[in-house]
Amino acid sequence: MERIAATCVLLTFCVGCLQVFALKSQLLTRVGRSPFSSNTPVSYQTLYFDQKIDHFGFLEDGTFKQRYLVADKHWRNPGGPILFYTGNEGDIAWFCNNTGFMWEVAEELGAMLVFAEHRYYGESLPFGKDSYSDSKHLNFLTSQQALADFAVLLQSLKSSVQGAQRSPVIAVGGSYGGMLSAWFRMKYPNIVVGALASSAPIWQFPGLVPCGDFYRTVTQDFAKSGPNCDVNIKKSWKAIDNVTSTASGLQWLSEEFSLCSPLKNKNDVFSFKGWLQETWVNLAMVDYPYTANFLQPLPAWPIQAVCKYLDLGSTASDRQLLHGVSQAARVYYNYTGSASCLNTSQTATSSLGFLGWYYQACTEMVMPMCTDGVHDMFEPEEWNFQAFSDGCSAMFGVRPRAEWAGVVYGGKDIASHSNIIFSNGALDPWSAGGVTHNITDSLLSIMIPEGAHHLDLRFSNDLDPPSVRAARALELSLFREWIRQAGKTAGTSSTS
Amino acid sequence: MERIAATCVLLTFCVGCLQVFALKSQLLTRVGRSPFSSNTPVSYQTLYFDQKIDHFGFLEDGTFKQRYLVADKHWRNPGGPILFYTGNEGDIAWFCNNTGFMWEVAEELGAMLVFAEHRYYGESLPFGKDSYSDSKHLNFLTSQQALADFAVLLQSLKSSVQGAQRSPVIAVGGSYGGMLSAWFRMKYPNIVVGALASSAPIWQFPGLVPCGDFYRTVTQDFAKSGPNCDVNIKKSWKAIDNVTSTASGLQWLSEEFSLCSPLKNKNDVFSFKGWLQETWVNLAMVDYPYTANFLQPLPAWPIQAVCKYLDLGSTASDRQLLHGVSQAARVYYNYTGSASCLNTSQTATSSLGFLGWYYQACTEMVMPMCTDGVHDMFEPEEWNFQAFSDGCSAMFGVRPRAEWAGVVYGGKDIASHSNIIFSNGALDPWSAGGVTHNITDSLLSIMIPEGAHHLDLRFSNDLDPPSVRAARALELSLFREWIRQAGKTAGTSSTS
Repeated sequence: MERIAATCVLLTFCVGCLQVFALKSQLLTRVGRSPFSSNTPVSYQTLYFDQKIDHFGFLEDGTFKQRYLVADKHWRNPGGPILFYTGNEGDIAWFCNNTGFMWEVAEELGAMLVFAEHRYYGESLPFGKDSYSDSKHLNFLTSQQALADFAVLLQSLKSSVQGAQRSPVIAVGGSYGGMLSAWFRMKYPNIVVGALASSAPIWQFPGLVPCGDFYRTVTQDFAKSGPNCDVNIKKSWKAIDNVTSTASGLQWLSEEFSLCSPLKNKNDVFSFKGWLQETWVNLAMVDYPYTANFLQPLPAWPIQAVCKYLDLGSTASDRQLLHGVSQAARVYYNYTGSASCLNTSQTATSSLGFLGWYYQACTEMVMPMCTDGVHDMFEPEEWNFQAFSDGCSAMFGVRPRAEWAGVVYGGKDIASHSNIIFSNGALDPWSAGGVTHNITDSLLSIMIPEGAHHLDLRFSNDLDPPSVRAARALELSLFREWIRQAGKTAGTSSTS
Repeated sequence: MERIAATCVLLTFCVGCLQVFALKSQLLTRVGRSPFSSNTPVSYQTLYFDQKIDHFGFLEDGTFKQRYLVADKHWRNPGGPILFYTGNEGDIAWFCNNTGFMWEVAEELGAMLVFAEHRYYGESLPFGKDSYSDSKHLNFLTSQQALADFAVLLQSLKSSVQGAQRSPVIAVGGSYGGMLSAWFRMKYPNIVVGALASSAPIWQFPGLVPCGDFYRTVTQDFAKSGPNCDVNIKKSWKAIDNVTSTASGLQWLSEEFSLCSPLKNKNDVFSFKGWLQETWVNLAMVDYPYTANFLQPLPAWPIQAVCKYLDLGSTASDRQLLHGVSQAARVYYNYTGSASCLNTSQTATSSLGFLGWYYQACTEMVMPMCTDGVHDMFEPEEWNFQAFSDGCSAMFGVRPRAEWAGVVYGGKDIASHSNIIFSNGALDPWSAGGVTHNITDSLLSIMIPEGAHHLDLRFSNDLDPPSVRAARALELSLFREWIRQAGKTAGTSSTS
C-alpha cells in the first residue's frame, strides 16, 4: 500500500492522483471566446505547425501537427514584440483562456500573442490516438523536446510572418509552463529575450529543497484560514480509520460523502484518503480572492469557505468531524450544486492531461515530496525513490532519472542566465520549489503574499490584492525593459 | 557526378572524403606516454564511465562504457580546477596527446586534466561493433547527446572524487571539440565556468557565413607560400582532364603519382581530383611552423615545402605541371619516405573517425561550402543542399536538418552567454566559420595570424610565433580569472 501511495502523491502537479486516465476528444475552439474573461475579449486563430516528432535523433523523421493559437489584433507590425506562452500539460485553449495577463498587456505592448501547445497534450498528439499506447510511443514526451518544439516554431514564425523577423519574443508560462518558460530562456536565449516564470517550481527536484515544504505550505494555508482548520484535518485521517473499521462505518462514510462508488474495503479507504489529500492540495493551489473556475468552480477564498465546516471543538466525535470534512469537500466538488454524487476518481478539470504528466514525473520530472504529520496536517510518508521508480516501471515500463533535471536545467547554479522573472504566491504550495529570492539583478523573484498558483497570470479582478497588481506592473515594466534592450542589441543575424 | 562531389567535399571536417571507413580496433593505452610530447610527460589513467545511451528519451535505458582519461598529478586537492577536454570525432588518446597546452598549464593552475571521449568514436561505442551498422544504431550519435555525456560524467566526477565538489571546470576543445566546448558552456553553464574553443567554426552553418570563405582561405595560404602556387594548382584541374582524356594519359598520371590503384576511367579521375583537393585543404589545416605529425608527418611550414614544386612558369606543359603537383602531394603523403605508393582512399590519420563525422554532417552538422574558381583555386561547385541531402539519404538513410544547429546553438545570437574564448588561426580555413571578433567583454576572440588549425592547443615549440605565445598567455590569464570568479560566487547547491 505504501508503494502505491508514494507513486500517487508524488506524481501530482495538476494532481488527480487516483484518476483513471482516458484520452478524451477535447472540445476544440477554432475561433474562441473565453467564458472566463470579463472585459477583455479572448479571440484567436487556431493554427497547426508541422513539428518534428524527434528533435534529438534522425531515425524518426516524421512530423505531427502542433497546435498553436495566435492573436495579433494589437500587434505593431513590423517589429512589435511577441508574447509566447510555453504550453504545459493540458489543452492550450484552456491555458489561453486562463492567462488573462497576456491579453491585458497586449495592446499596451503592441504585442502578438502566441500560445503553443505542449506535445502529447490537447490536440498535439505525435501519434494521434496511439500516442499513449506504450512506452515506445511515449518516448518523445520530454520537456527537452517541448522546448525544441517552441524554438523551431518560433524560428519558423519569425521567418514566415511578415514583419516578425526582428520581433523580440518573451516567454510566459505558469506552473510547469513557467518552468518551461524559464528553461526556454536558459537554453534558447537566441530565441527569447526574457521569460516570466510564474509559480514555477524549478527547484522541486532531488537535493534542492526539503521534500516536506510543499505540504507544509498547504497546511499553513489551512491553519490561517479558520480556527482549528489544519488541526481537524490532521485528526480526520485517524477518524476515517476508526469509522471505517466496521462495515456499517464504511457505509456511513460513503453516504456522508455521497460517494458515487461506496467504499468497500481498506484499499478503497486508502484511495479515499488520497483523494481528500489531493483535494486540500488543490484548494491551496486555487485559493484565489474571488469566485473562479480553474480546477473547479469555487467561491472567493475557498479555503476560508472550507474551514467554516471544520471549526469544531476538540470534543467533536469522529463522525461529527467527518461530517465537517464532507461539507468541506463539497465546497470544492459541488460549489455549483450540480453534482449528484462525489467521484473520487476526479479531482480537477479534464483540460489537464494527467497521464502525460504522470509519464513526465516518471521520467524527467522527479519531484520529491514527503509528509511527517508534525509540521503538516497529513499522515507521515517519507520520500521513497525506489518505490516511486518501481511504480513507474510497473505503470509505464520506464524508470525515472533522479539527477537528470538538475544536470540539464542547472539546479541552483543558474546565476549566469539573465532576464527571468520568477513570480510566486506565498499561498501556493508550489512556491516551496520556486525561486523566491533574487539571484542576480536580472534573475528576479517577485513574491505575492496573498497569491495562490500563478495568480499574476490570471485576468485582473476588482478583488485582486495590491500585491498582485504591483507584481503585474513590475512584470510589465521588465517586459518593456527587455524589449528595449533587444532593440538596442539587434544586429543582422545572417550574412550570406 | 556532381551529386557525389557535393556530398563528399562538404562532409569534410577532418576531411577524408572518399575513404571507405572500416572500424578498426584502436591501439589502447592504459597508461600512456605520448610520442609527441617533448618535455612535458603525458601520463594518465584510462577510465570508463557507465553512460546512458539516450539522454533524451527513456525507452532506451541501456548504458555504454564511455572512455575518459584523467591526469591528476598536479591537481590541488581539494578544490583545484578541472580542465575538461570535450572530445571530438576521434580517439581521445590522440586528442590528449595533441593538446599539449592543457599539459603545460596543469601544474601552474593546480589543475586536474580530464579528456572525455566522444560517443561513437575511439573505444566509446554505444553498441560495440554494431554501433555503425545502421541508422537505428547510429541514432544516438549527436552533439546534443555528447554534451549531455560530458555533463553527466562531470556531475558524477564532482560528486564521487574526494575534493572535487567545488572544483571549477573549464572546458577546452579544438575544431569540432572546440564547438563542443563553446556549446557546453552555453548549454550547461552550471557545469563549466568557461570554455576555450580553439578553431571552432560554430558559424559554419547555413545562413551564417558565405559558403566560399573556407576555400578562399585555403587558396590564400597557398598564394602566400610560394610564387604561382595557387595559380598552378588552379591550372592543374584542367591539366588533369586533358592528360586523362587518353588511356596512355591515365596510365602516365597513375605512374607519375605512384598511385596504389591506377586510374581507369572518368570516375577514378573525379575521385583523384577530390583526393587532391582534400590534400590541399589538409595542408592548410596543418600548416604549422615546425615539423609535426598531426594528420600526417610533415615538415615545418609544409605549404612552403609544397609550393617549391609548383613554382613553374606559365609555359609549363600539362605534364610538367602535374609532375610538380605529384612532387607536392608527396610532401604530404610521403614526407618520411616510407610510402611505396600513394593511396587515394586515405588522406589523414586513422585516429579520426570519418564515418562518424560523415553521419554527423548528414544530420546536424550541415556546413555549406562552395567554390567558384575565381576567388579560389578550385573547380567551381555550388552549395547544393538537396543533392547533399540525397547523398546522405543514400548513405545513411537519414536526411540532414539544415536549420537545426542554428536554432539549438544560437547562430549569431550568442551575446547573452559568457566566459568563452574563441581562438582562431588566420591560416586555418576553419577560421572562416569561426568567431573572429569580440562579441562581448566575456565572449572574446583571439586571432593568431600565423596559426593553422588550433595551433594554440598544441605543445609549445621553440619555433612558435609570438602570436601563439601571446594567445596562450591570454588564455591562461582568462582561465585564472574564471577560476577566481567561480571561487567568489560558489555557494551551496544543495539544501536538503
